[in-house]
Amino acid sequence: MAEPLRIALAGLGTVGAGVIRLIETNAALIARRAGRPLEIVAISARDRSKKRSVDLSRYAWEDDMVILGEKPEVDVVVELVGGADGPALACARATIEAGKALVTANKAMIAHHGLELATKAEAAKVALKFEAAVAGGIPVIKGLREGAAANAFERVYGILNGTCNFILSTMEDTGRDFADVLAEAQARGYAEADPAFDIEGTDAAHKLAILAAIAFGAKLDFAAVDTAGISRLRAADIAQADSLGYVIRLIGMAEPGHAADGPRLFQRVQPHLVPFDHPLAHVDGATNAVVAEGNFSGRLLFQGAGAGDGPTASAVVADLIDIARGEIGAPFSVPVAELETLPPALTGNRTGRAYIRFIVADRPGVLAELTAAMRDAGVSIESLIQKGRSEAGGEVMVAMVTHEGPESAVSEALRLLDGSPSLIRPPLVMQILGA
Amino acid sequence: MAEPLRIALAGLGTVGAGVIRLIETNAALIARRAGRPLEIVAISARDRSKKRSVDLSRYAWEDDMVILGEKPEVDVVVELVGGADGPALACARATIEAGKALVTANKAMIAHHGLELATKAEAAKVALKFEAAVAGGIPVIKGLREGAAANAFERVYGILNGTCNFILSTMEDTGRDFADVLAEAQARGYAEADPAFDIEGTDAAHKLAILAAIAFGAKLDFAAVDTAGISRLRAADIAQADSLGYVIRLIGMAEPGHAADGPRLFQRVQPHLVPFDHPLAHVDGATNAVVAEGNFSGRLLFQGAGAGDGPTASAVVADLIDIARGEIGAPFSVPVAELETLPPALTGNRTGRAYIRFIVADRPGVLAELTAAMRDAGVSIESLIQKGRSEAGGEVMVAMVTHEGPESAVSEALRLLDGSPSLIRPPLVMQILGA
Repeated sequence: MAEPLRIALAGLGTVGAGVIRLIETNAALIARRAGRPLEIVAISARDRSKKRSVDLSRYAWEDDMVILGEKPEVDVVVELVGGADGPALACARATIEAGKALVTANKAMIAHHGLELATKAEAAKVALKFEAAVAGGIPVIKGLREGAAANAFERVYGILNGTCNFILSTMEDTGRDFADVLAEAQARGYAEADPAFDIEGTDAAHKLAILAAIAFGAKLDFAAVDTAGISRLRAADIAQADSLGYVIRLIGMAEPGHAADGPRLFQRVQPHLVPFDHPLAHVDGATNAVVAEGNFSGRLLFQGAGAGDGPTASAVVADLIDIARGEIGAPFSVPVAELETLPPALTGNRTGRAYIRFIVADRPGVLAELTAAMRDAGVSIESLIQKGRSEAGGEVMVAMVTHEGPESAVSEALRLLDGSPSLIRPPLVMQILGA
Repeated sequence: MAEPLRIALAGLGTVGAGVIRLIETNAALIARRAGRPLEIVAISARDRSKKRSVDLSRYAWEDDMVILGEKPEVDVVVELVGGADGPALACARATIEAGKALVTANKAMIAHHGLELATKAEAAKVALKFEAAVAGGIPVIKGLREGAAANAFERVYGILNGTCNFILSTMEDTGRDFADVLAEAQARGYAEADPAFDIEGTDAAHKLAILAAIAFGAKLDFAAVDTAGISRLRAADIAQADSLGYVIRLIGMAEPGHAADGPRLFQRVQPHLVPFDHPLAHVDGATNAVVAEGNFSGRLLFQGAGAGDGPTASAVVADLIDIARGEIGAPFSVPVAELETLPPALTGNRTGRAYIRFIVADRPGVLAELTAAMRDAGVSIESLIQKGRSEAGGEVMVAMVTHEGPESAVSEALRLLDGSPSLIRPPLVMQILGA
């Protein structure tokens, strides 16, 4: 058997423990598939004294994770510390600068510093891999970067945050309201004590920006992701969507855009109405799923567990096996120097159908005011549902679905209504996912 | 830019034309991703004079596809001739023996001769790749061989034949009978004039045997696949399944088995009842989908177009890009010499729930005879539906669903009934896909 691939592990939380357990449990078959064993030669974490679920006594402890890559007995460092900056970034930079490969599950760090790290890795001719940073155990980075590499992508989109999907599908199944289900998700450990990162769409936006860079050969641009979360959704929105033939899912979507000055890239995370007959409508619970539409492959779907120690460890170790086999290609599929700078697409140029929900005062003339604004902005209404006085405090909910039309017209209609005393809350707009 | 990867194409049917179209259409982005251009330097097919959908005038014609690999200007031969033996196999052998890489979409050839070809390719240190041989454009071989390589697989199964899935989902949507829908599929070009290869499960069995070898590190054993097709299904079976909460799908399934003398491998292609809430229940039309259950990843689903020139070309060219990038690992994930010889698992040892359908004579005592046989064989019946006299010729259909139990008990019950004059046709047994 060939020399082992010698691994240092930085970060020993649930995912770090999962990686250790995986490498121990599947050691023999991994060695056969990789052509050489994977061997953990050093471990590090912020707090050595913390009680952990795996026995660490057989592994050499290193207090300073930043120097792991400098150790001569280390071939690759696995960074599982988390956080876009701080120790994780210091560890990643030092590892690559020491000429060692880096594997990470850290989506925030890749979304913010991925180009810098990839540039360094390409210069040092070492691998930088982050399959676990997007969609947990689903090999979707490999799917786009290699499996579907022959295609120009027309659109890449999916369900990228398991916490949001758990909340939405539980709201759907139980009719309960957002705050109530979020509290349950927190109690069950599916959502963080500070859930903003998940429910406001930031986590999904990190993953989308990474996928978009790979799929469209574009310089990663997290700041350009137009991001909205799910915290404003109500049980009544889910019920309305259901009555119209849709479920609501938080969708991250990227596709090429065009403007007079050249190509652009559209990136958005937003709750969408998904038709019952779309494969994403059947993705429930904490599951993730990514759709890639290639110009030759047609629609490809990758689905699986989006988080958890086992699935995340599966993706981390797949990267290690790739490295053991000698696969050290460009992290973003093409070298960083060849990635295009694509400015954000103007959403107003897009066309589609939208769901618009108003919470309005319960008094005469409000419907006329809303529909007049739509008419004046050129928005054509396909259906309109006004619920009775079930909402508290004299509020009424009015939900519309528009015909296909420019997003700019919907924005204009909302601008016309801006400041109207009839609107008790800001309107909520969700796009309808087109086939 | 580095030297091009120089390709010879053997076979210029719809897939061959698709590969040419893809390489021409996406040339620039492929060169960026592969790090070098893909260049077609020779083409060959059985009939030069045949009219084709792409312009071939710019490519050098070679009459004899067997010598393509011997040409010094060729790096890799793409075999798209088809057929397990004959010119395809001669071309494949000669290519590898000449020390050139081979890419093929030929599932029959890989199912029958994959081990021989892989042995030769490993000895010659050249790539042998066949992503397009399984599930068309879906990168599922890469998904198992690399993306999920960290896992021991508990089960791999899926919808592997688009023709059967088109027929089943059309029967489901329309209530029409098998023969009628098959005729439509033939008229629309989804099924061959001789459809036996698809509808009797052989094509799915080829693909399953390939997936099973990769997933379970086993010597490919096509002959061990227990294969049944869909030609005996009736509209009434689909209606019964629907009333019980299932759709019917032709499922290929492989999983590890155990016997007193050591590990075994279970491989079966059979129509299954799939619960409405299982992701495969929503796979309609000519779509394929593969589920891999890893011991760390959990359930992974890969879904997409299972056939067609575009999707198949996408998979062929993905293999070419891998080769251009230098990926020439073991075709079956581990070297052929390390693949285990796993005898077929004994199906009788398996447990599960089954649907059993009888067509019986419409006279008193028949139900008592059927249920007595079940009782005597130890089969516990969960539900039983006897349809009225709607079947022609005094036939009555009786459908049962069993409780969880050994498959051997069901076989024993049918053995007890064998030869009974009450049975007008042989009983039909379908397993119920478990979660």
